[in-house]
Amino acid sequence: MAPSLEHYEDATSGIPVKVLGTQIDGTNAAATLQLEEADKHDQVLRVFRCLIADLCEQFKGGHPGGAMGMAAIGVSLWKYAMKYSPSNPDYFNRDRFVLSNGHTCLFQYTFMHLVGYKNMTIEQLKSYHSDRTDSICPGHPEIEHEGIEVTTGPLGQGVANAVGMAMATKHLAATYNKPNYELVNNMTFCMIGDACLQEGVALEAVSLAGHWKLNNLALVYDNNQITCDGSVDITCNDDINEKMRACGWNVIDVMDGTTNIQGVVQALVAARASDKPTFINIRTIIGIGSASAGDAKAHGAAFGAEDVANIKRTFGMNPEEHFVVPDAVYDFFREAKSRGEEYEKEWTTLVDGYSKEYPELAEEFKLRVAGKMPKDWTKIIPEKGSFPTTPTASRKSSGFICNPLAQNLNNFMVGTADLTPSVNMTWKGKVDFQNPELKTACGINGNYSGRYIHWGIREHAMASISNGMAAFNKGTILPVTSSFFMFYIYAAPGIRMGALQGLQQIHIATHDSIGTGEDGPTHQPIALASLYRSMPNLLYIRPCDSEETAGAYIAAIKATSTPSIISLSRQNLPQYPENSSREGVQKGAYVLMEQEDADVTLIGIGAEMFCAVETKKLLEAEHGIKARVVSFPCQRLFEQQSKEYKQSVLRYRSNAPRVVIEAYAINGWERYADAGYSMATFGKSLPGAKAYEHFGFDAKAIAPKVKALVEEVKKEGIDSLRGDFRDLNGTMGYGFEH
Amino acid sequence: MAPSLEHYEDATSGIPVKVLGTQIDGTNAAATLQLEEADKHDQVLRVFRCLIADLCEQFKGGHPGGAMGMAAIGVSLWKYAMKYSPSNPDYFNRDRFVLSNGHTCLFQYTFMHLVGYKNMTIEQLKSYHSDRTDSICPGHPEIEHEGIEVTTGPLGQGVANAVGMAMATKHLAATYNKPNYELVNNMTFCMIGDACLQEGVALEAVSLAGHWKLNNLALVYDNNQITCDGSVDITCNDDINEKMRACGWNVIDVMDGTTNIQGVVQALVAARASDKPTFINIRTIIGIGSASAGDAKAHGAAFGAEDVANIKRTFGMNPEEHFVVPDAVYDFFREAKSRGEEYEKEWTTLVDGYSKEYPELAEEFKLRVAGKMPKDWTKIIPEKGSFPTTPTASRKSSGFICNPLAQNLNNFMVGTADLTPSVNMTWKGKVDFQNPELKTACGINGNYSGRYIHWGIREHAMASISNGMAAFNKGTILPVTSSFFMFYIYAAPGIRMGALQGLQQIHIATHDSIGTGEDGPTHQPIALASLYRSMPNLLYIRPCDSEETAGAYIAAIKATSTPSIISLSRQNLPQYPENSSREGVQKGAYVLMEQEDADVTLIGIGAEMFCAVETKKLLEAEHGIKARVVSFPCQRLFEQQSKEYKQSVLRYRSNAPRVVIEAYAINGWERYADAGYSMATFGKSLPGAKAYEHFGFDAKAIAPKVKALVEEVKKEGIDSLRGDFRDLNGTMGYGFEH
Repeated sequence: MAPSLEHYEDATSGIPVKVLGTQIDGTNAAATLQLEEADKHDQVLRVFRCLIADLCEQFKGGHPGGAMGMAAIGVSLWKYAMKYSPSNPDYFNRDRFVLSNGHTCLFQYTFMHLVGYKNMTIEQLKSYHSDRTDSICPGHPEIEHEGIEVTTGPLGQGVANAVGMAMATKHLAATYNKPNYELVNNMTFCMIGDACLQEGVALEAVSLAGHWKLNNLALVYDNNQITCDGSVDITCNDDINEKMRACGWNVIDVMDGTTNIQGVVQALVAARASDKPTFINIRTIIGIGSASAGDAKAHGAAFGAEDVANIKRTFGMNPEEHFVVPDAVYDFFREAKSRGEEYEKEWTTLVDGYSKEYPELAEEFKLRVAGKMPKDWTKIIPEKGSFPTTPTASRKSSGFICNPLAQNLNNFMVGTADLTPSVNMTWKGKVDFQNPELKTACGINGNYSGRYIHWGIREHAMASISNGMAAFNKGTILPVTSSFFMFYIYAAPGIRMGALQGLQQIHIATHDSIGTGEDGPTHQPIALASLYRSMPNLLYIRPCDSEETAGAYIAAIKATSTPSIISLSRQNLPQYPENSSREGVQKGAYVLMEQEDADVTLIGIGAEMFCAVETKKLLEAEHGIKARVVSFPCQRLFEQQSKEYKQSVLRYRSNAPRVVIEAYAINGWERYADAGYSMATFGKSLPGAKAYEHFGFDAKAIAPKVKALVEEVKKEGIDSLRGDFRDLNGTMGYGFEH
Repeated sequence: MAPSLEHYEDATSGIPVKVLGTQIDGTNAAATLQLEEADKHDQVLRVFRCLIADLCEQFKGGHPGGAMGMAAIGVSLWKYAMKYSPSNPDYFNRDRFVLSNGHTCLFQYTFMHLVGYKNMTIEQLKSYHSDRTDSICPGHPEIEHEGIEVTTGPLGQGVANAVGMAMATKHLAATYNKPNYELVNNMTFCMIGDACLQEGVALEAVSLAGHWKLNNLALVYDNNQITCDGSVDITCNDDINEKMRACGWNVIDVMDGTTNIQGVVQALVAARASDKPTFINIRTIIGIGSASAGDAKAHGAAFGAEDVANIKRTFGMNPEEHFVVPDAVYDFFREAKSRGEEYEKEWTTLVDGYSKEYPELAEEFKLRVAGKMPKDWTKIIPEKGSFPTTPTASRKSSGFICNPLAQNLNNFMVGTADLTPSVNMTWKGKVDFQNPELKTACGINGNYSGRYIHWGIREHAMASISNGMAAFNKGTILPVTSSFFMFYIYAAPGIRMGALQGLQQIHIATHDSIGTGEDGPTHQPIALASLYRSMPNLLYIRPCDSEETAGAYIAAIKATSTPSIISLSRQNLPQYPENSSREGVQKGAYVLMEQEDADVTLIGIGAEMFCAVETKKLLEAEHGIKARVVSFPCQRLFEQQSKEYKQSVLRYRSNAPRVVIEAYAINGWERYADAGYSMATFGKSLPGAKAYEHFGFDAKAIAPKVKALVEEVKKEGIDSLRGDFRDLNGTMGYGFEH
């Protein structure tokens, strides 16, 4: 049960508090630890705050106020409450720390420096906001750098990431821990500011964390009541504690978080012992010690030389000296390193013992710690011959491929944003990821070892929490999400953060065209593929049949530092077993139907491949025009290919024009074609086949347009099209009268 | 004060309740109205539910369960609680109804039919899910059709839209109402399902509505505890009533919403009298009467002929008959029409009296009701000569233009997602839109007549609430939002819904390039412009200096059925007073610097125009290469131009290659150029100028690449480039090793 720990601010300073010792089992083996004397705390806080002011002042920029306000929280975390190892930042069972208010990154960088992360030198600290391209102190924390768990900055994301990390811990613990062998039991601490509690993605994630009872998660709220525009109450008057309680959280107040390290430590310790996720509401003063303390001005600008000098006088430091860290401050944190090495050692010993008692499980566990896929995963992908040759929705094809993968590979954590009946992501014997105590009205229950996740109708949190699961330890968990493609527009900020961080994930996006039908234009994506095709480090793959869907999964699984979106149809699609090729998909594009003396190349994609193939037939049968067909499921994969290969597919400088056919906005296809047959407007609520017909995605409508183009080229020469891309199905219009 | 109205379910049926009479001042002039007898209610509910089952069964699709469950809520709204006029659905002071759970659209369509919306015939009802292209009953409600306030479907959006409508009412009331003249005092009722309460955008909007004390808003929660995946408790165990109370809402429970019309009416009436926004938590049974009542199966599929027959037997209807509406049911609703006409008449009389007492205000009010801009708005836009010729950030240029517009035009409602110090959107004498009773810690207060909106850190709600303000009455309010461009990725689902609905808005997106600097890759947009450039009915305008920024505002204000994003720099930009042109911006692209015998055309855009201009100079000075420069602020505007104009700008089939330079992903520019100089990866945390240099956006780096291209063309002929777009600054890569 959660201790009743509200209003710890009243605790008398200096009283011994229980904090976690070096034991792996934190909750049972808490040791009594005497906090350091108040004057030592005082010195650390003074030095830290002046250092932050100096670091922002040198290049006249950055975010000093939050970091200064949070100093006592930092001491509580890095000196007392967190288990981590500066010598080996990737030590597997470390507590995870996420800075959701990423603009206060100097807070984290500076504590990392003080506790001895080896790359985080004082010179590196000084590179903050400099023009050094080798800085490990960018304006927001970046996962590439040692000791940073996750890249943050876009507000609210860190909260969701932290929920994902806490899920990973719960899941791995439920899967591998055994009596006396708590291989995985780390906490996740997530710092948040006022803004994080306003962003929808965080509110979605908060609701899920409460639902799942992730008691290994603490949100540490730097409640300074200041945002850029002024005091928080100009935009928010939520009773935040009641709101968190209503979402199933344990709430602890700390009324003075600016100096009361004792109170903060007690709250952090209580969080580890809670039976629910814990929200620690800590009042601080932004920019404490500066002239703009408690004011929005302290948020995002340096204080100016004069005020920095004043800050130093206020804190008893010499205003003439800069970047001063007395040895006593380093000494204060010195034990962090040895303590961390001790954690590691104990964990290694634990794993050794486990390996003897549970050799098979240990082997699997070690493989996952190493982030490796089982070598024979490719064998799980069904052979081409096993797929139906009758028309099949590619969402169904996806099920043929993903379900056995998910069934057999323990690193797959698969879920859906409330579309289980539509996306075909379940498998025989699947167990849901749930709080084991949960008893639902519909009788669908589960436990933490479950690998099927009901995300609810929370697409954004689904993506951003998945980032956290993937970032927990590279390769240990492969999150697979699913929803309608259109609703990946809600998830876009999270998907982007996954791509930016190189976090492998597979997003299964069904109902990906106007063929989704009666649901109408709100559900029919037109522009969204343009975003994902242009997003760096993301594979947007749109397969045309079951075989290509297999290829899409193979490409996505091989891309170990890249998220993929596999874009699938609701409606049945013709199959091309004689022509389609999983190997072709790996190359991004390939010739589906060759024709050596072709008059035109038709480029078909995904659910609209039928248009290219039917048009080819019609052109040949009725118009005497020979066409070849290229299948083009993924632009980014194609861009990786050799010039020769590209030439063989696209025939640059040939006299036969290339026409791309896709029921999306054309933007971006102009690179690969001379003309396009695309959507110039939003869609329409009609049965799928009728919607295609209504917008002209129909060989009878397409063939005459292609014929006219071919005839123009025969008459005027191919130069007639040069630099003058042709829209054969309407141009980019407003869509509305003005 | 809000009446204490919890658990009205215990009220005895048949007792007279106070509902609003025909008076415009609803709260003071409530009349006593006897509800109809229970047996009449019973018949209406039975007939309605069987009709819904029939409508879904005919084409074996659609969403019957929710609509059937909500029948009693519908009777309460359309028969008793809502003020509206079927003869004139656009009657200005009508109560607004938003169906956030838009998939239950048959609920709304069918009640509109029963109360006499003239276009909503029984034949139209039967067109639901048919292949009729002239259906006004699409799979989700669409604003184009009579009586539909807003297009819904993507979940959560409707909640935000409703908040925007309630804001519009509050604002217009505070601006124009006078004692005895409540010109605007309508309620907004928003139906929501379980899903809407999970989506982040709704949670953001809920927090704002509570903050603003929008007591003219009621969320009517169809609490059937079922989503696609099963019972809601598999993904959500929030105490929703407590959560809403913590956000400042009045909460009313109705425990039996399936039959207890009395209870629902009382709750709806209480909502109108509340001093806070009201959350009415109504328990219903999805698919009531069917074999899958209370089950997820009732959500999104027809019941099958057998079960439909059973439903009819259960409800005492003839299973052999379909689409049956007895005259008694039409009679039951008949008075809706005359009552609506009475509302209109009284309102017209009120406006007449107002026009005599307050002739000037009345003139302005009528202009706004007509949705017209004051004719002389163009005169407010500063002349070119008034802008500084020294380097100026375009976010600052935007302030020069927008601030006087906002100061002088009462239809401008301007706001920011907590970036007041960064986006330059305030004006002298601005008043904040706030609850007048609010007293904030920082002393920034306001009232409902205010036109500056602090959105907090809620970009998604900002866009989606703005849709609601714009949809309140076309042209009455012109919402202007602002944030960093990168964070319009959070807002994308809302922006898209604005474009789909033809709702004019201006989104001011600052910090739009890698020049945003130290904040790093999380804040530097690379792919986002591709989304907005390809989105139908949206203008993404990226001006290069103050004069072009003026042009961008003119284009955005003229586009009365189209949202615009004006994309601006954080950093100072050189000004081109001799060359740049607001008229040019209206055409999307124009020749900034002509050169008749040019060897190359350089296309510059927005903040990177300096690259094109400096490269031109360097090519001429050091390489003997002549270059012309095209400025290309908006692709969609350019696509509206004549072929001749396009030819004059882009010189199709010329022998001089065209090179586009922009620090974004290149996707989509291939249409207008032969080669591109762009970003192939995410950005980097560096000072702005250094970031440009690091990624090669620098004439010294660009000129040699352009020179090589020009030389290749001179040697090999322009045909060498045909269909083979050249990336001069790196190709679309993964960005990560695999």
